[in-house]
Amino acid sequence: MATCSISLESGKRPHILTIAGSDSGGGAGIQADLKTIEAFGCYGSSVLTGLTAQNTLGVQAVHEVPTDFVIQQLESVVSDDQPTCIKLGMLTNASIIQALTTKLKEIKNVVIVLDPVMISTSGHTLLPENAIEALKGLYPLVQYFTPNIPEAIRLSGFRPDGDGDGDASKLNLEDMIELAKQTNSVIGSSTVLLKGGHANISRKEVSSLPKGKYKIIWEQGDDDLDTIEVLSLYSRYSGISKKEDDNLVVDILVNGGEIIALFVSRKINSKSTHGTGCTLSTAIACSYATEESTGEGDHTLRIFKKAIGYTQSAIASAYPFGNGHGPLNHAHLSVRRALPPPTKHNPHPFLSHLIQSNLPLWKSYVQHPFVVQLGKGTLPKECFEHYIKQDYHYLKHYARAHALGAYKADTFQDIAAFTKIAAHIAKEVDKHVWYCESFGISRAQLEAEPESSPCAAYARYVIDVGTQGDILDLYMSVASCLVGYGEVGLWLQKQVELGEATLEGNIYKRWMQDYCGEDFLHAVEIGIENLERRIAEDPPTEAKLARLTKIWHECVRLESAFWDMGLKLIK
Amino acid sequence: MATCSISLESGKRPHILTIAGSDSGGGAGIQADLKTIEAFGCYGSSVLTGLTAQNTLGVQAVHEVPTDFVIQQLESVVSDDQPTCIKLGMLTNASIIQALTTKLKEIKNVVIVLDPVMISTSGHTLLPENAIEALKGLYPLVQYFTPNIPEAIRLSGFRPDGDGDGDASKLNLEDMIELAKQTNSVIGSSTVLLKGGHANISRKEVSSLPKGKYKIIWEQGDDDLDTIEVLSLYSRYSGISKKEDDNLVVDILVNGGEIIALFVSRKINSKSTHGTGCTLSTAIACSYATEESTGEGDHTLRIFKKAIGYTQSAIASAYPFGNGHGPLNHAHLSVRRALPPPTKHNPHPFLSHLIQSNLPLWKSYVQHPFVVQLGKGTLPKECFEHYIKQDYHYLKHYARAHALGAYKADTFQDIAAFTKIAAHIAKEVDKHVWYCESFGISRAQLEAEPESSPCAAYARYVIDVGTQGDILDLYMSVASCLVGYGEVGLWLQKQVELGEATLEGNIYKRWMQDYCGEDFLHAVEIGIENLERRIAEDPPTEAKLARLTKIWHECVRLESAFWDMGLKLIK
Repeated sequence: MATCSISLESGKRPHILTIAGSDSGGGAGIQADLKTIEAFGCYGSSVLTGLTAQNTLGVQAVHEVPTDFVIQQLESVVSDDQPTCIKLGMLTNASIIQALTTKLKEIKNVVIVLDPVMISTSGHTLLPENAIEALKGLYPLVQYFTPNIPEAIRLSGFRPDGDGDGDASKLNLEDMIELAKQTNSVIGSSTVLLKGGHANISRKEVSSLPKGKYKIIWEQGDDDLDTIEVLSLYSRYSGISKKEDDNLVVDILVNGGEIIALFVSRKINSKSTHGTGCTLSTAIACSYATEESTGEGDHTLRIFKKAIGYTQSAIASAYPFGNGHGPLNHAHLSVRRALPPPTKHNPHPFLSHLIQSNLPLWKSYVQHPFVVQLGKGTLPKECFEHYIKQDYHYLKHYARAHALGAYKADTFQDIAAFTKIAAHIAKEVDKHVWYCESFGISRAQLEAEPESSPCAAYARYVIDVGTQGDILDLYMSVASCLVGYGEVGLWLQKQVELGEATLEGNIYKRWMQDYCGEDFLHAVEIGIENLERRIAEDPPTEAKLARLTKIWHECVRLESAFWDMGLKLIK
Repeated sequence: MATCSISLESGKRPHILTIAGSDSGGGAGIQADLKTIEAFGCYGSSVLTGLTAQNTLGVQAVHEVPTDFVIQQLESVVSDDQPTCIKLGMLTNASIIQALTTKLKEIKNVVIVLDPVMISTSGHTLLPENAIEALKGLYPLVQYFTPNIPEAIRLSGFRPDGDGDGDASKLNLEDMIELAKQTNSVIGSSTVLLKGGHANISRKEVSSLPKGKYKIIWEQGDDDLDTIEVLSLYSRYSGISKKEDDNLVVDILVNGGEIIALFVSRKINSKSTHGTGCTLSTAIACSYATEESTGEGDHTLRIFKKAIGYTQSAIASAYPFGNGHGPLNHAHLSVRRALPPPTKHNPHPFLSHLIQSNLPLWKSYVQHPFVVQLGKGTLPKECFEHYIKQDYHYLKHYARAHALGAYKADTFQDIAAFTKIAAHIAKEVDKHVWYCESFGISRAQLEAEPESSPCAAYARYVIDVGTQGDILDLYMSVASCLVGYGEVGLWLQKQVELGEATLEGNIYKRWMQDYCGEDFLHAVEIGIENLERRIAEDPPTEAKLARLTKIWHECVRLESAFWDMGLKLIK
C-alpha cells in the first residue's frame, strides 16, 4: 500500500498582531494591515485603539477606544496565541500608549515594529502633543522604527532644514543621512528606517556620494537598472521620461549610529498613496516573520528590501477607488489558484475537478456498452478480439509515451518513475500475448494487424501532446487510461455484487479480475497520488488548468471511441 | 514603433462594504470579512458597529460603538465610493439597526446580504432581544439572508422540533425544508439560505427525497462523487470512513416559497469553524460581485455554490491557531505570484528580474572583452572570422528553434509569429553570407566549417530545452540572444558617444550599426513585449520562475562562452 505523500495538513502561519486605528474606507489602519498580512501569507489579528470615519478625501471623525478595552483586546489575543511580530500604528492618546507600554513589557520573544503615526496623509492630526512625549516609553521595546521625515524631525529635535519650518522637500541627501543618525541616537537601540518620500532627491546627489561609503540598494536589485540600455527601450512607449526618473525616493536604514543602507527608487507618480506608512510597517513585520534568517545576503537588508519592494509595487499597481488619495493594491502579488489545496476532507481536488468537469463524458467512457456487455458476458467474441488486438498497438505507444516522459524529466526520480512504467509495460505485454493466444491470436497476428483509426487517433494524440507540451501535459495525456481502467475494474466488481454482471462462466472473467486486482489498483493509487502531488506543488492558474482539462476531455473521448471501435469493429 | 499591448493599468475592483463587529482575534467579524474580500480579489471597506475582545475560546468583552459614529462611518464610505454589495453582520443593538435602516434606504443600486448574527460560535449573545425585533425593518432592503437553524427558528417562530427547545440536531430534512420555507415567508422577497450545519442529515434522507422534486447540488459538482469508484480508493489511506460520510450538511436555498436548491456536502470534522457564518455571508457578496451574470448554468446557483465551496475548503484547509475553535484559512485559494504585475512605473518586471538575478553574469556577456575590442576596432580579424563562421551555424539552429516553437504552438497567432521569425532568419542569412564574403569567406566555407564545441553546446541546448519543455521554456531559451544583442548594440552606441569605442575606420562598423539599427531594435522591442505579456497573462509560481530563470542564466553563460570561442579561437 502506498503511503500518501501529499501534505494534508498545513502548518501554522506566522501570527502578526496590529495595534492601530480603523479606517472605515479600508485603505489605511488595521484594514491596510490585515490586507498586507494576508498578502504575505501570515495570520492577522488586531487591537483597535481608535476608530476613524474616513475616506480617500480625509478623516471626518475619530472615536477613541477606552484604554481598558484596548488592553482587554490585547490580553484576549496574546493569551490565546503568541504573535511573532506586533506592529504599532495609530495609538490615539497618551493613556493608551502608557497602558500598552506596561502590557507589552510582559510579552517576551516578540518583535515590535513602531510606525509613529502622527498625521494622516490628508493632514489630519492623529496623535496629540502629550502622546508624542509618551511614545518615548515604548522606544526600549521596539526593534524596528519607521518614521517619515516630518516625524523624525519632530521626534529627534534635529532641524536639518535650518529655518525649522519642517518643510521636508527642502532637504538634501546629506541632511537626510544626518537626520536618520540623529533619530537613531534618540530612539536608542532599535533599527530606524527613515522614509524619504517627502524629500526630492536627484540622481546626481546619489551618484556623488563618496564611492563605497554607503551600501546603495536600487529598486529591483543591487544596481541601478538604468545602466541596462535595453530596458530603456521600453520607456519610449511607457511614457516615463528621464526627467521624472530624476526624482528619487531615498529611504535610509540606520542602526547603532551606522548607516546600513540607502534604498533608492524612482518616485512613483501616483495619487494612490493612502495608507502607505501602515502598509510598509506591517510589510516589515511580515517580511521579518517569513524571510528565512539563513539564505543569501544580509537578513535585515532582505527584510527591508522585500517590504519596500512590496509597498512600491502595491502603489504602482493601484486601481481607482474614491475621489481623493486612493488605497494601495495590497493583493497585487496574489493570484487566485484554480483549485483548493488537497485536505483530509478532499484529498483529490484535481481528479474530482477533472471527472466532474464533464461527468456525462466520463460515464460514457467507464460505463460504455462495450464494458456493460463484457461484464454480462454477452459481448460478441469478435468485438473483444478486435479490441484486444488494437490494445496491443496502443500499449506500445503507451510505453513510448512514458519513455518520452523520462526524456522530458528534470530529475532522476522522474526518470526512474517513467522508465519503470515503460519497462513494466514492455515486460507485461508477454502476458497480453499469452492471453491473446488463449483467444487463438498469435503474436505474429498481433504485429501484423493494421492500426485502426481510433487506435491511431488516440495513441498518436498522446505522443503528440507529450512532445508539444511539458511533462505535466504528458502526465495528463496518460492519466485517463490508467484512472479509467481502474474505474472500469471497480465498477464491474460492483456490478457483479449488484447482480448486474457475472464472473461465472464469463469468458472475460480474467480481464475483469485483472483490472480490479491489487496490482493494478496499486498502480492507479500511485498514479492519482502523483497527479495530485504535482498539482499541489505547483498549483495551476485558470489558464493552465483549462489546458490540462482539455487534454483530459480529449483523452476520455478517445477512450470512449476505442470501445466503440471494438463494439462496431471499426478499422 | 510597436504599440504596447500589456495592460499597464488595472481596472476598478468590486467594492464590498462590511457593516459588522470587530473580532480582535482576527477569525470572525470584519477581520474575517476583509480576509474573504481579499481572497475574492475585491476591495473591502468596513463600518464598525461594536468591538469585541475575543479569541478562539470566547468573547471576553464588548464595546458598543455610538450609533452616530456608526452612521458617520457609513456616510464617509458611501459618499466617496459606491459599494457593489453591503454585507451586514453583528449589528450590536436596536438603535444601530434602526439608524442603519434609515440610512441604507438612501443607497440605491446596492445588493445587501444580511447574516443575522445573534450568538457567537462560543455561545456569547451578540444581539439583544429588542434588536432582533428591530431587524425586521431591514428585511425589505435585503437581497440575500443567511440564518442558521437556531436563528431561523427564532426569526420565523416556526417550531419544527416540536418541543420548542430549539435543538437543531433533532431536525430531519423535511423539517428543515419546511423551516426554510417558513423563514422565507416571514422575511419576504429576499432569497434565504438556511445554513444546515447544526443538523445531522444522513445520506439515506437525501436519497429518499422524491426524485426530481428538488435540485440537489453535491459538493464539488452536480452529482454525488461517491458514485465514482476510483475516488474512494483514496479514502483507504486518507482515513475518511463511510460512516463519517453519512453525516451530511444540507444548506437550503429558497425564494418566493420555492426551494431553489439543496447544497449537500459531507460534514467536515474540524474545530476550525470560528467565523464560518461571517465568511460565508461575505463570500456570497463577493461571489455576487465577481461572478459573470452570463455564463453556464443558473446565476444564483453559481453564486451560492462558489461561496459555499470557498467556505468549506477554507474550513478543511485551516491551520492551527489558538486553543479553542480556530479560524478558517481564508487565503487557501491565494498563491503568491513570484513577480509583480507590469505597471507604467515598472513595465518589464520579468526582464528586470532576469537581468538583476545575476547581474555580473549578464555583464560578462554584453560587455565581454570580445565586444569591447570589437567596439574599439582592435579585435583581431581572425577572431571575428571564427566567430562569424560559427554564427552561421548558430543561426541555422536558431531558425530551427523558432520552427519548433511553431510546432509547440496552440494558436495560429503563435504559429505565424514563430514561423515569421524562422523565415526571416532563413532569408536574412543571405546578408550574413554576403557580409562574410566581404571578409573573404565563401558560403561553401561556411557550410564546410565544423561546428565548434561552444556553438554546439549553445545551439543544441536551445533545441533540447525547446523539445523538453513547453512553449514558454522554448521562448525563454531564444530570448537572451535577441535581448543581449540589442543590449550589445545599444551599449556600443553609448561607448561611441563616450569616446570609448569608434565607428571611424572600424572594420566592424557595419556589424555595430546593424545591432543598434531601427530594424533590429524593433525586433527586440517586440520580443520583450511578448515575453512580458506571456508572463503577465499566466503569472509563474516560484517554481516555474526558478525554472525559467535557470534557462536564462544557462543561455547567458553560453552566449558569453560563444564570445570566448571567438576571442580564443576555440574549436
